[in-house]
Amino acid sequence: MSEILRVGIAGLGTVGAAVTRLLQRQTEALTARTGRRIVVTAACVKDQSKQRDADLSNIEFYADPVALASSEKIDLFVELIGGSEGPARASVETALAHGKSVVTANKALLAAHGLHLTQLAEENHAALAFEASVAGGIPIVKTLREGLAGNSVLRVYGILNGTCNYILSRMEREQLSFETCLSEAQKLGYAEADPTFDIGGFDTAHKLSILTSLAFGTRISPEAIDIEGIERVTLADIEAAEDLGFRIKLLGVAQRTAEGIEQRVHPTMVSKNSAIAQVMGVLNAVTIDGDAVHELTLVGPGAGGDATASAVVADIADIAKGVRTAPFGLPSSQLKELKRMPMRRHEGGYYIRLSVRDVAGAFARIASRMAERKISLESIMQRGRRGSPGDCVDVILITHATSEHLVREALELIFEDGTIVARAQVIRIERE
Amino acid sequence: MSEILRVGIAGLGTVGAAVTRLLQRQTEALTARTGRRIVVTAACVKDQSKQRDADLSNIEFYADPVALASSEKIDLFVELIGGSEGPARASVETALAHGKSVVTANKALLAAHGLHLTQLAEENHAALAFEASVAGGIPIVKTLREGLAGNSVLRVYGILNGTCNYILSRMEREQLSFETCLSEAQKLGYAEADPTFDIGGFDTAHKLSILTSLAFGTRISPEAIDIEGIERVTLADIEAAEDLGFRIKLLGVAQRTAEGIEQRVHPTMVSKNSAIAQVMGVLNAVTIDGDAVHELTLVGPGAGGDATASAVVADIADIAKGVRTAPFGLPSSQLKELKRMPMRRHEGGYYIRLSVRDVAGAFARIASRMAERKISLESIMQRGRRGSPGDCVDVILITHATSEHLVREALELIFEDGTIVARAQVIRIERE
Repeated sequence: MSEILRVGIAGLGTVGAAVTRLLQRQTEALTARTGRRIVVTAACVKDQSKQRDADLSNIEFYADPVALASSEKIDLFVELIGGSEGPARASVETALAHGKSVVTANKALLAAHGLHLTQLAEENHAALAFEASVAGGIPIVKTLREGLAGNSVLRVYGILNGTCNYILSRMEREQLSFETCLSEAQKLGYAEADPTFDIGGFDTAHKLSILTSLAFGTRISPEAIDIEGIERVTLADIEAAEDLGFRIKLLGVAQRTAEGIEQRVHPTMVSKNSAIAQVMGVLNAVTIDGDAVHELTLVGPGAGGDATASAVVADIADIAKGVRTAPFGLPSSQLKELKRMPMRRHEGGYYIRLSVRDVAGAFARIASRMAERKISLESIMQRGRRGSPGDCVDVILITHATSEHLVREALELIFEDGTIVARAQVIRIERE
Repeated sequence: MSEILRVGIAGLGTVGAAVTRLLQRQTEALTARTGRRIVVTAACVKDQSKQRDADLSNIEFYADPVALASSEKIDLFVELIGGSEGPARASVETALAHGKSVVTANKALLAAHGLHLTQLAEENHAALAFEASVAGGIPIVKTLREGLAGNSVLRVYGILNGTCNYILSRMEREQLSFETCLSEAQKLGYAEADPTFDIGGFDTAHKLSILTSLAFGTRISPEAIDIEGIERVTLADIEAAEDLGFRIKLLGVAQRTAEGIEQRVHPTMVSKNSAIAQVMGVLNAVTIDGDAVHELTLVGPGAGGDATASAVVADIADIAKGVRTAPFGLPSSQLKELKRMPMRRHEGGYYIRLSVRDVAGAFARIASRMAERKISLESIMQRGRRGSPGDCVDVILITHATSEHLVREALELIFEDGTIVARAQVIRIERE
């Protein structure tokens, strides 16, 4: 091992500039910690003339990330380009094929090619590290892979998308509609002009697929995730949740069941007293249920240049020390095929909001349809008041644990009965 | 590296039995993760005939922990005896001197001899790991040492003693006195017959000294901690805290200041909305303020056989993989002498409860004494009512940030004025 670790960074946006600054600011401390001097020697940017908030005076610039990745002038390649294909994939593959260690924050790349990249890293004796790809500054990858190495994980779940959590927190605190909060988030730069990737749950799903692989020793399988976004959460649901002792969060949940691994992303009712319910605004949080540790929760910033750089630099420091850990905790040959547990078999409690026309007979009709499907109700209540006889009111059901397919069947029957005038709102309840 | 890692465990109490069970239950998974088979081959117990909840059939028993520590039949020594001297210290020193790696949960030993043991480990190329010594199952040692390696830590603070947190939570929730809750905790086995070590803050201080060294790269210095226990917290304080938007927690706090490192353990007012305030009962939590990550909080079980075993086994797994990390993150020669920041120079907000005889003139006299010392008040209020003219009432002050010595001086003057009839209750406020 040479005394200097030469780092090449592809992408000097917010995170890349923050990584460069942090490595420069912490040079002495990192040398003391790792025994090596970590120096950013090269970088790849689209526009070299752009002003960046870091000292780039001794950095060699490359126009092509693949050229940087294969350069003999770097020992470690940091990929901060983004995207699952194109230059990000090509440059990471090139670096690994050249035996260079890779640190990346690219969740989309890992979700799509995590297993392949792990194999490539193994074949070339290179490290592949991606702490920054999930939950920003929270060291959740290290925690699952090393800190809980002795545990059999039963469930891992978390708030993995700050945009959604900002919107849901804002709706609750300010009693504003989803649309209002989304456009606010866009003005503040928390949400993209096309917010689908965040609010549709796809960003959370990418991150969840990485956590699932780490937690259960399975091959990364984003296609096996059931995904629902937060677009259909209304103020009526938020208010009902509040009254019932819940809060609504967009969670990514991966859970071991007797029949396979359940991976799901959806708006979720969590107890107002749970640790995860306290996480407001753009923060992220992850809770792990392990057979030994029981429940562990980590809360911190899920995005932002400095927080993400904290995770990138921690990975670089481990590599500088010579630590080589299997990217997903196990040699790739031992990662098991994920046996998918279909969502219709999901077992849990449900919050159901029904828009009901004739309240007088409705309770009985709804309750009997539920009973037919052996769904036991914790509560059934009317919310709001009718103005005039023809108006609809909301009826809220909270069920005890039951199967998703039974709930779907019962709701289908209730709809066919003409008891409700619109599609039911169904939000799963996650217990601590 | 041989394929089998032979583990010897000194102490098969709750934690030792749980470690043995966990290593046995997870043998296959740990072999896959570490590339080695981890086997408990030997143990040292006082009473070999005692029934224990683990399979001990292939384990060789030693009567003397020092003999076990030097045995050629083990590669790794797990110390679960406890205490800063005696057999714990002797056996750990022996194991390290023989080049055997050591995993320990012994906070008292580390607080007293952490630097010496680190040097001994370095000289003999042995690992020394102690994840279980602080906050039980929470991987806080790994997080500070590795997960936040790129950060300059500004402050680390936490709820590190489950007994105290149980008592304070119970007082708040059930409106019970300190004495009632303490005797409840003793009945439930959460507190010792002599509870001084827990409720006096000494256990928290041991753990804090370890966190301080990891966070700031300083030599472990438990003697430089200012310690106050929770014995003087009354229901009146808990209720006033509630009304003012605070909750009272026993915190260990280590903070970098311009003049040195402040290490302190005391009952603390924390905002009811903070992550740490949500931590109730026997749980532990640690928050780290880093310059890059900003704020990260970990919440989990601080004690219990299984949770502590989770941490012990994670350390064993790292060692099995061949990972060698400096115990406190830096080579011992680079750990700096801790420059102590005296408590009287502490800057922060204060909650002050005064028992006042003559309320009419008291507000003015108190406020003017505070003003003389340039202490700016956020609020001053009376709580409770006088029954008859001679009775005392509580006056509560909340100050803006000021210096501890100014507060002490002002309170001295207020006492000399005859305004108050008893020693003032002073509880520091910790802001997020």
